[in-house]
Amino acid sequence: INTSTVNSICFIWQIAMIALFAIFVRYDPEADAHWTEYMHQNNITSNIENDFYYRYPSFQDVHVMIFMGFGLLFTFLKRYSFGGVGFNFLISAFGLQWALLMQGWFHSLDSTDWTIKIGMKSLINADFCVAGCLIAFGACLGKVSPIQLMVMTLCGVSLFAVEEYVILNLIHVDTGGSMVIHTFGGYYGLTISWILYRPNLHQSKRLRGSSYHSDVFAMIGTLFLWVHWPSFNSAIGNHGDGQHRAVINTYLSLAASVLTTFAVSSLSAKRGKLSMVHIQNATLAGGVAMGTAAEIMVSPYSALVVGVCSGIISTFGFVVLTPFMEKHMKIQDTCGIHNLHAMPGVLGGAVGAVTAAFASTSVYGQEGWASLLTSLMHLFLLLFFLGRARSLKQGYLFSLGCILRLPCWGDPEDENCFDDEVYWEVTATKVHILATRLCCWTPMLIINKLCRRSVLCQCEGKIRSQTRFTERMLLHMHIG
Amino acid sequence: INTSTVNSICFIWQIAMIALFAIFVRYDPEADAHWTEYMHQNNITSNIENDFYYRYPSFQDVHVMIFMGFGLLFTFLKRYSFGGVGFNFLISAFGLQWALLMQGWFHSLDSTDWTIKIGMKSLINADFCVAGCLIAFGACLGKVSPIQLMVMTLCGVSLFAVEEYVILNLIHVDTGGSMVIHTFGGYYGLTISWILYRPNLHQSKRLRGSSYHSDVFAMIGTLFLWVHWPSFNSAIGNHGDGQHRAVINTYLSLAASVLTTFAVSSLSAKRGKLSMVHIQNATLAGGVAMGTAAEIMVSPYSALVVGVCSGIISTFGFVVLTPFMEKHMKIQDTCGIHNLHAMPGVLGGAVGAVTAAFASTSVYGQEGWASLLTSLMHLFLLLFFLGRARSLKQGYLFSLGCILRLPCWGDPEDENCFDDEVYWEVTATKVHILATRLCCWTPMLIINKLCRRSVLCQCEGKIRSQTRFTERMLLHMHIG
Amino acid sequence: INTSTVNSICFIWQIAMIALFAIFVRYDPEADAHWTEYMHQNNITSNIENDFYYRYPSFQDVHVMIFMGFGLLFTFLKRYSFGGVGFNFLISAFGLQWALLMQGWFHSLDSTDWTIKIGMKSLINADFCVAGCLIAFGACLGKVSPIQLMVMTLCGVSLFAVEEYVILNLIHVDTGGSMVIHTFGGYYGLTISWILYRPNLHQSKRLRGSSYHSDVFAMIGTLFLWVHWPSFNSAIGNHGDGQHRAVINTYLSLAASVLTTFAVSSLSAKRGKLSMVHIQNATLAGGVAMGTAAEIMVSPYSALVVGVCSGIISTFGFVVLTPFMEKHMKIQDTCGIHNLHAMPGVLGGAVGAVTAAFASTSVYGQEGWASLLTSLMHLFLLLFFLGRARSLKQGYLFSLGCILRLPCWGDPEDENCFDDEVYWEVTATKVHILATRLCCWTPMLIINKLCRRSVLCQCEGKIRSQTRFTERMLLHMHIG
Repeated sequence: INTSTVNSICFIWQIAMIALFAIFVRYDPEADAHWTEYMHQNNITSNIENDFYYRYPSFQDVHVMIFMGFGLLFTFLKRYSFGGVGFNFLISAFGLQWALLMQGWFHSLDSTDWTIKIGMKSLINADFCVAGCLIAFGACLGKVSPIQLMVMTLCGVSLFAVEEYVILNLIHVDTGGSMVIHTFGGYYGLTISWILYRPNLHQSKRLRGSSYHSDVFAMIGTLFLWVHWPSFNSAIGNHGDGQHRAVINTYLSLAASVLTTFAVSSLSAKRGKLSMVHIQNATLAGGVAMGTAAEIMVSPYSALVVGVCSGIISTFGFVVLTPFMEKHMKIQDTCGIHNLHAMPGVLGGAVGAVTAAFASTSVYGQEGWASLLTSLMHLFLLLFFLGRARSLKQGYLFSLGCILRLPCWGDPEDENCFDDEVYWEVTATKVHILATRLCCWTPMLIINKLCRRSVLCQCEGKIRSQTRFTERMLLHMHIG
Repeated sequence: INTSTVNSICFIWQIAMIALFAIFVRYDPEADAHWTEYMHQNNITSNIENDFYYRYPSFQDVHVMIFMGFGLLFTFLKRYSFGGVGFNFLISAFGLQWALLMQGWFHSLDSTDWTIKIGMKSLINADFCVAGCLIAFGACLGKVSPIQLMVMTLCGVSLFAVEEYVILNLIHVDTGGSMVIHTFGGYYGLTISWILYRPNLHQSKRLRGSSYHSDVFAMIGTLFLWVHWPSFNSAIGNHGDGQHRAVINTYLSLAASVLTTFAVSSLSAKRGKLSMVHIQNATLAGGVAMGTAAEIMVSPYSALVVGVCSGIISTFGFVVLTPFMEKHMKIQDTCGIHNLHAMPGVLGGAVGAVTAAFASTSVYGQEGWASLLTSLMHLFLLLFFLGRARSLKQGYLFSLGCILRLPCWGDPEDENCFDDEVYWEVTATKVHILATRLCCWTPMLIINKLCRRSVLCQCEGKIRSQTRFTERMLLHMHIG
Repeated sequence: INTSTVNSICFIWQIAMIALFAIFVRYDPEADAHWTEYMHQNNITSNIENDFYYRYPSFQDVHVMIFMGFGLLFTFLKRYSFGGVGFNFLISAFGLQWALLMQGWFHSLDSTDWTIKIGMKSLINADFCVAGCLIAFGACLGKVSPIQLMVMTLCGVSLFAVEEYVILNLIHVDTGGSMVIHTFGGYYGLTISWILYRPNLHQSKRLRGSSYHSDVFAMIGTLFLWVHWPSFNSAIGNHGDGQHRAVINTYLSLAASVLTTFAVSSLSAKRGKLSMVHIQNATLAGGVAMGTAAEIMVSPYSALVVGVCSGIISTFGFVVLTPFMEKHMKIQDTCGIHNLHAMPGVLGGAVGAVTAAFASTSVYGQEGWASLLTSLMHLFLLLFFLGRARSLKQGYLFSLGCILRLPCWGDPEDENCFDDEVYWEVTATKVHILATRLCCWTPMLIINKLCRRSVLCQCEGKIRSQTRFTERMLLHMHIG
């Protein structure tokens, strides 16, 4: 059942995409063969003034973050690396097609011919939208089937487009998407994780950890995200000083959160040792928290302050909040997205509100009049958003929950969570287990033979139980 | 013999390169110190109008694809990761020097002073040319020596320059190189693999597979290629709408082939499990198939259709064709390049021909008159190309085959294929094998001692054979 | 003590940074909200003429090199991958903040309001400065504590700013930083390694090597550095032909050093096998050596010659010099930075001096008059620099040495060098060791039981010693 479902859902959705693209999607004037005529009409003198050349490098960086950054960050589990990077690939590739359509309908539907014109900015926005869904994936990593993921992505992208429409029409400013992307993605993921709560998840506890090399793979993902985050926060900004400033602010904020994460991690962990989980995640919080205010004249030192605060919040979240939420709130957050995305996202929204309120026209030059109004809307929206998360749980997300809990999606058993064997061909492991078994049982067989010689029968039971214990340990070892 | 050969060939070729560069290669006007004068003569007002700034980001992406994308994709074998990434490095670095010369002689020899002027576009073209040879390397991965690879690259680059000259003079359009790069590279590699057919390759079957982490490494390579493919297809395109459109088309086509690959892979594989080999390779087919038509106004939904078709073809190729070719056609295709490059490349050529035929001047604006003619040439060329592959086998490639089969190149024995130990210092493995031996033999030695005490001699033979079996299993395990 | 020290030092320094940034650091006019006014004043017609768009792609490449290139290159040790990539992350994030301040004070302090205006070029320069400190880290990898590293970075960045001020004011030309970055970083690191000499380092010999997959991780780092080096050498160059030429020269030089490294490596190593250490490091020497002369009209073939020379020097350094220095000069150079950075850096300085001397005005166009003077200064400076390294050892660096040798920094014991367990939570290893122990001791326990049955007591001692040997071997194996 599982096979044909994945197969047919992928095919049906892809064909639906083709049909909808055929009806709705056209090229942007800048990407259209009529560009030369358009140039003449708009007094553009050179092909090089095509916006493409000023967006494409940023787009590439964002694209790398989505597919390589998130993908590799999700490989940290010792036996779910294929699933982490593979399903990330699947839902991103699906999500971006759907995002192009949804965002097009909401933001840029051409009223003359009812089509969507896609260009460089649409592709970046589609990647942003996918980022929100990947954050949600992080909370459910290892506990859901690919089909559930695709349903989640379909709903997530739709919800995202609506939410983005509301927020951006109210406040106009959220360049790096602290709220639109990160807070949304975070709380969406946590809600789904809450809906799909598994009381017996401890049965697959042996697989819920990292191995030495899977931690290094995840670290590559972290670095991809960290290095390219300035592009993320500046990609769709206004040309000129805005983008320039967004890069500087994000760069500084990220640098500050690295230091703070190391500090708090060494303070909180056992015997002062650093934890890879913190370094892989909390170091990125500075980028999230700088999202909304990235283009604002916050001045360099404030960017550092934002980085410090977000680093502290995020690391403490991993130490205190994640275990608390799992124990008392029935939210099992595999990647700790609450600490990396949701909380720093809220902080980012607050920073945006405060800075916009304090920004006077003298700092912003002649163009900054609307800022005070915006800041009030910011605050309002923050409250609205925090409230919304609760109210939506009873509405849209409840029905989503019902859909996701349908038994036919083929989600893994409690004892098979975080295990690639369920969905992927993993030949190596079988050999491992076989070899392990042989390695433990050979001495026992020998002893058995000896025992049968009637000299040493008394100690047989003891030896057997000991050997079984060894076998379990070795299995554990080879998985790691 | 092997050592001094590698050594002297590398040195001699590098010195030959230096000599040829001294005679032929000069800087492009845009990279020359006389640029300021050139600017005055050509009414260029700002340094920033140097084409460098509009090509360099694309060049970097292509460069990353060649060295990191291909290199890491070739690490998928459990014990040939060094060879995959290392020899990829060697032949790319050699190939690009030779490509600069060959492409210069064929395409841009300055008839006034018989020199080649190299600039940003030459570097991108050299990387493209190297890509063709790396594709060919993929078919022979693990079965050839570094010297054979260098001979292959020398011949491949030369052949590529000739072929490119012929094709681009006939049809003018092959931006992303579906035919010029991928189909050429694919069939060149398959021919060499056919020449170097090893009937006893099954002797190294134990090493012809992936381990868990080597699959993740290869997946990083895949993602590098996937993410940067839009740059590959647009890098040497015309500035303006053409490059813009090439990016959008490639982006969509790639996204569609990911979904299709997951669908077909889960359908075809055992018990509905996904196969990493498919995900690593077939997801890229959309980029290959979009190569020729990348700049054409195919409209977004057609790009999705191309992606779907290429994803299906490529995945079915892995399931059906590769085993068939190995069994019945004496072609051992290690990386499945026939499925990833050759077939989608042919599809891409066909797409180019069809779309060019249907493109009318109304879509293309005032500049699209020549399209119908081009499309006919396209079709002609496709047929010519398919025919050529057969005829060349008996000509140039036969002599190449003779050269490559010379016994002095130091190619690995049949039982040592896919093994890094032949060409690389791999200390870790020795320790592994030693430890494995100790681990199995210690109990046996103990038992031996016991046996000698004459109490338990009868069971000795049985124990010994059992222990030997365990040893083999453990060896197998530690390699994986 | 260790925990709270790391913690408080990170916090105190971060707070100091915030205070200093609040006092001194402001946005560049191009990143300031007054940019529109600035545009009117300077007759800039379009936002797109903001220098941001011509520096940012290069900045991103350099940023990737610092955090991903260096970070992954340092993961090559089998059990110090976390430390390599993690501490690289920590000191880079700290160093770049301090570098922004130090370089600002020395190079771009605005005398009207005593502030530093930071823009894209400052960020690139900060990354360059950090590169110097990371090179120094390479020499001490695995032998120092994070606090020592932070002290090293603080002093290194300060020293770097002074040195850069002196050199760039004397000779004006060192685009790719052969001398300023690489030679400085190299000799700074070697001096610290000499100060912190450990006579009993052989006690952790078992950990001073690579495992199969850690070598592949390091190779990814190498490729990141190799691919992006052209950006490194051109990032802060003058717009126009200079940057264009810097890219071409670096690209060719790097390609040539790859071939030479393979040649020399296969010649020098045991039984003609290639060594991953050489391929990971010496292939990059071409980029270092091209640093100073990158923008000069050296002509393409000279770039190849530089690459060949640096590849030979560097590989021979690994084969001959590093063991010699460790044995006779009390310098333990973990990553071989003397071969990759210090020596090719000196070569680069010499190349710069020679080429500048031979450059005539006819080659350089109207703007090249000052070259002869510069070349003389070059040579002078090279000698000065080589002398300085010795004299400074007795001054600044002696006091640095005293500081670094303070017992309270928590540096690892001689037998725990190159071991992540000292500073990181590594759960997997504990399981490994436990399992290993069980695996060896189980047969022994069984035998013990048998022995106690008084039949086989004689052979007990022999068995026990053998088992202990097996245990040690297995431990060794599981670490690798």
